Parts: sequence; structure tokens; C-alpha cells
Amino acid sequence: MASVCSMILCANCKDVTIWGHDAGQLEDIAKAGENKYFLPGYKLPSGLRFEPDDEKAFGNCDLILHAVPCQYTRKVWQRLSKYCPANIPVASITKGIENKTLMRPTEIIADILSDDRDYAVLSGPSIADELARELPASVTAASDNMDLAVNIQVTFNTSWFRVYTNSDIIGVELCGALKNVIAIAAGILDGIKAGDNAKAALLARGLAEITRLGTVLGADEHTFPGLSGLGDLVTTCISPTGRNRSFGQRIGQEQSAKDALEATNSVVEGVATCESVIELAKKNNVEMPITQAVYSVIFEEKPVLKAIEELMTRELKSEG
Amino acid sequence: MASVCSMILCANCKDVTIWGHDAGQLEDIAKAGENKYFLPGYKLPSGLRFEPDDEKAFGNCDLILHAVPCQYTRKVWQRLSKYCPANIPVASITKGIENKTLMRPTEIIADILSDDRDYAVLSGPSIADELARELPASVTAASDNMDLAVNIQVTFNTSWFRVYTNSDIIGVELCGALKNVIAIAAGILDGIKAGDNAKAALLARGLAEITRLGTVLGADEHTFPGLSGLGDLVTTCISPTGRNRSFGQRIGQEQSAKDALEATNSVVEGVATCESVIELAKKNNVEMPITQAVYSVIFEEKPVLKAIEELMTRELKSEG
Repeated sequence: MASVCSMILCANCKDVTIWGHDAGQLEDIAKAGENKYFLPGYKLPSGLRFEPDDEKAFGNCDLILHAVPCQYTRKVWQRLSKYCPANIPVASITKGIENKTLMRPTEIIADILSDDRDYAVLSGPSIADELARELPASVTAASDNMDLAVNIQVTFNTSWFRVYTNSDIIGVELCGALKNVIAIAAGILDGIKAGDNAKAALLARGLAEITRLGTVLGADEHTFPGLSGLGDLVTTCISPTGRNRSFGQRIGQEQSAKDALEATNSVVEGVATCESVIELAKKNNVEMPITQAVYSVIFEEKPVLKAIEELMTRELKSEG
Repeated sequence: MASVCSMILCANCKDVTIWGHDAGQLEDIAKAGENKYFLPGYKLPSGLRFEPDDEKAFGNCDLILHAVPCQYTRKVWQRLSKYCPANIPVASITKGIENKTLMRPTEIIADILSDDRDYAVLSGPSIADELARELPASVTAASDNMDLAVNIQVTFNTSWFRVYTNSDIIGVELCGALKNVIAIAAGILDGIKAGDNAKAALLARGLAEITRLGTVLGADEHTFPGLSGLGDLVTTCISPTGRNRSFGQRIGQEQSAKDALEATNSVVEGVATCESVIELAKKNNVEMPITQAVYSVIFEEKPVLKAIEELMTRELKSEG
């Protein structure tokens, strides 16, 4: 996603610099003019500057875009914080909830930087590969500070990449994290060939439990049916390329969680997020039957068919 | 859907009778023990009774299930109303809005029967073919009268077909109708290979405009992200077999609306519904850019790519 964002930013802005935690990998990417690790087949913009040096990474920047897997966010900012200029806003595209602290990505960064700068989140249905091909997409830029949200909107918006603003950073960031757990469940349904009715019901009931937890944590309920909630949930659950969905599909096809993780060439955010969400749900006394079922299948070896049967035969309820 | 419902009902109830407007067709189905017209390949339950006679159709029934295409609903009830017993509730699975009157299916029936019986709606992600295979599904039973909603819930619920209750019959019925227009748009995106990001954004922004109109018409906003809203929207937009989506796909592949309609072996509810929704939106002063774009493509020969470009380059907005 960092590579794709650099493409969009280079089309709209003057100076775009990319930093990476692994200087060798960054040099490979710079030399090839292509991110063969995570976005093979697409040329990076010729104007993009690569900067492996922690001290020089920020330069005279106006905006910092954070795109590091959630569980590595703290480590990266512990390393970079002393070079980070004051007052420059940070926009995050990272999706997850940190284990143990149960913090959202922008909370982790704020925890390290501990100053009063503004934060934003850019989120929504945005499979990197499709963005690299400039296929149409719409996403949300969210911030407590609406000036910053509008700034991100204008900075990223193109004729094929439509950005809406939203003032609910908590909701938008939670949606991005929690949908990855539901995507694992969607993959499991694909693995056992449960059909489109089952998947659609999963999305609706999944969004219902995401909304239940999110509103208790301070999010606006209107965020959840939006681009960063429902929208991102849909792509993540239907795109054949999604890592969380593919991981779930392997489990549905009777691979063990361990083997399925090893078969995935990238971070499966939903696995760590699932642990965090179960803790958050317990702490806040929120019922999340689907997330609990995914947790039981991944971490407690509950058979998939047993988990689904339990979900389908719970006490009859009203939808609300 | 009537055939599939008869399967579910025969598993749960003692006497199930199916009536059809075409006695010859009904006799064919009875003889074959299979609905070769609309659900080929699945045996109908042996206990199912077939009744072509209008006068005998209702018998001593406790519940009437209405499953007639929306634009034929008035005609069918004009024919049957004089035989319809008083006080027996009617549950509808029909999805659409009547042209000209702009009535929902249960409103049309109430308009003809003009008594004070109760109405319910059963709706949600429920592709008939998957239900016939007893793949897992979850739907909503909605009524103003919660006793009736619970009655429908208990009557239809099985170990693989989970029914939730909902008190918002307006919202549930509108969702079922309006999603068919968005499904045409989803098919158009498939036809031009726009990708999963675009489809997910369509679903989120489609649900946003459905919600805008629905709440103005008296629906509860919480219905829209539920099974009958988001859930049904998802299946209808992703299932390869959906008639509305397939119709849209043909248009995306540059067939004319007329040719695409002729190529579809069934009623494409979304086309007539689109006309009704545009009228409802105008009358109630609600902005529905996606429905308007579908209308322009189907009825005004607007080129697909022009319609999409216009949607993507509208004034920048907040999500709300």
C-alpha cells in the first residue's frame, strides 16, 4: 500500500520520499524502480525519492504517511521519533489493533511521539493491485481536525481515486482493523463452499458486531455502513487476492492455522487483530460471536463446521 | 423463491399449498415434482399440495405467503381477493416498487384487500439455488406486529436457515426493492471489469443513498446495514446467478438495455424498480446519484463510461 500511495502522491504533489525499515530492501526497490516484494509488475514513479537514513527521512515534510504493519508500528516509531519534526500531521493507512496495549495505530504513534500534533486515517476498499492499475476506487480520510481531513482529501483525490472526508477517526480506524477478522471468516466459508447467502449474512452480522464494539469504544455508528466499514469489509471478503481471506480459505480447506500462516507470503493482520479484539470485547462486555468463532478456530482448534453450527443454532433473536 | 419457501415450510409445517396464476404451468410442476421453469434440478417436497383453483387456493390457511413479481402483484390480488379469508396475515417475499403508485408489495396487497389484517416481510440474502441445497443462510422477518414477526421466525427457522425478527417492515421492504437497482450497477462494473474496489465503493455509496431515501420514507436507519439491506445487497451484487447483476453485466459489455432484457430468462425487477425509485427520489427531494446513473444508462442511452466518470468527479464531499 505504501508503494501505491507513493504513485498517487507523486501524481498530485511535488516531493515524495519513501523510507523503509530495511535499507537493503529499499535500495533493491529503488534500483529496480519497482517493489518486487509486495507490488510486482508496476513501475514506481520516476520522481519518487528513496531515503533509507532515519535522520534524513522526514526532511522538510508537510505530511507524514504511516504504512507499517500494526504490530511493528511501535518499534518503528521508537526508532524514528527523535528525528520526527514537531507539528507535522501523521496520516495512517495501517490496519490493526496492537496486542496487549489494545491501541489503534494512530494511538500507538501518539503514545510514542507524545505531543499534540494532528492525526488522520485514510481507509476504504483499496486493493493495492487495482489501485496500481488506476481502476476506480473511493476511500475515506478521517480526522478529529476537519482541516486536516480536507487536506488529505485534496492531496490524494484524483479522477479515478475519490476521497470523502469523515470526522470519526476512531470508527474509521476500528473498521479497518476489525474487518480483517471477518475476512478470515469469509475465507473459511469460501474454503468449505458455503455459498454467497452465507457470506452476505456473515458480512451483515459481522458489521453488526463491529458496530457494537465500535460504538462502545466511542465511534460514530454512521461510520460503519460507510466506505471504511462496509466498503472495506466487502472488498476484503470478496477479493481473491486478500491475505486475510486467503488465510481463512486455507483453514476452511482443512489446513491447520500454523500451516495456513506459513503458506501466506505476508503479514496476516487479522490473526493478531483477532486476539486484540477478543480482549477488547471481553473488557467492554460486548458480544462478538463471529470474532469469537474465528478465535476458537485459529487459537483453540475448534472444528470449522462445529463453529458454524454453533453460530447458526444460537437462541433466536431480533436483528437490532 | 416460492418453490424454495415451499421446501422450507414443508419441513416445518403440516399443510402447505402452492397456487400459481397459470394452471397449466402449475400442473406441469406438480406432475414433475420439480419446478423446471425456475428451480430446475431440485425435487419439491412430496407433501406439497398444488391448487390451481382460485376459490380453493386459501383453504383453511393460517398464513398466506405472497411470492409474485411486484408489477404483477396488483393483478393477482384483484383476481384472488374475493376468496381471501379475513384476518389471515400475509407475508411477502416480493421485491420491488409498483410503477406509478410507487407502492411497496405489502402496500399494494393492503390496497386491494383493504381490511386491517397484519402484514410481514421475509427478506435477506437468499439466492434460491443455494437455499435448495440447504446451504446456510440468515434472513429477516419484519412486521409492525412483533407477534407475527416471531411467528414467521419460528415458522421458517431451521438449523441451516436462521431467521431474525425486525419491527421495521417499511425499511426491510424498501431494502429488498432498492438493492436491485444497485445490483444492475454492480453488473455494469463487472461488465467493464472495474474491479473489487469499485464494486465495494458502489455497495457502500449505494447503501448510503438507499438509506437516505428510506429514512425519508419512514424506515429506521438501523435496518439498512442489516441482513435485508447490506446483506441482500451483497449477495445480489456478487452472485454470478443474480438476474439484475447479469442484466447489468450485459450492458457493461455493450449490449443495449433492450437486448440485455431479452437475453434474461426472467423478470428483471430492478428495471421497473429503477423507474419507481427515480420518481420517489424526485418527489421526496433525495439525491440518489447511482440510481440516477443506472436510470440514465438504461432509459436515456447514457454511455456507461460517461456515467461512471460523472459519479467519480462530482464535487468532493464528506461521507455523511
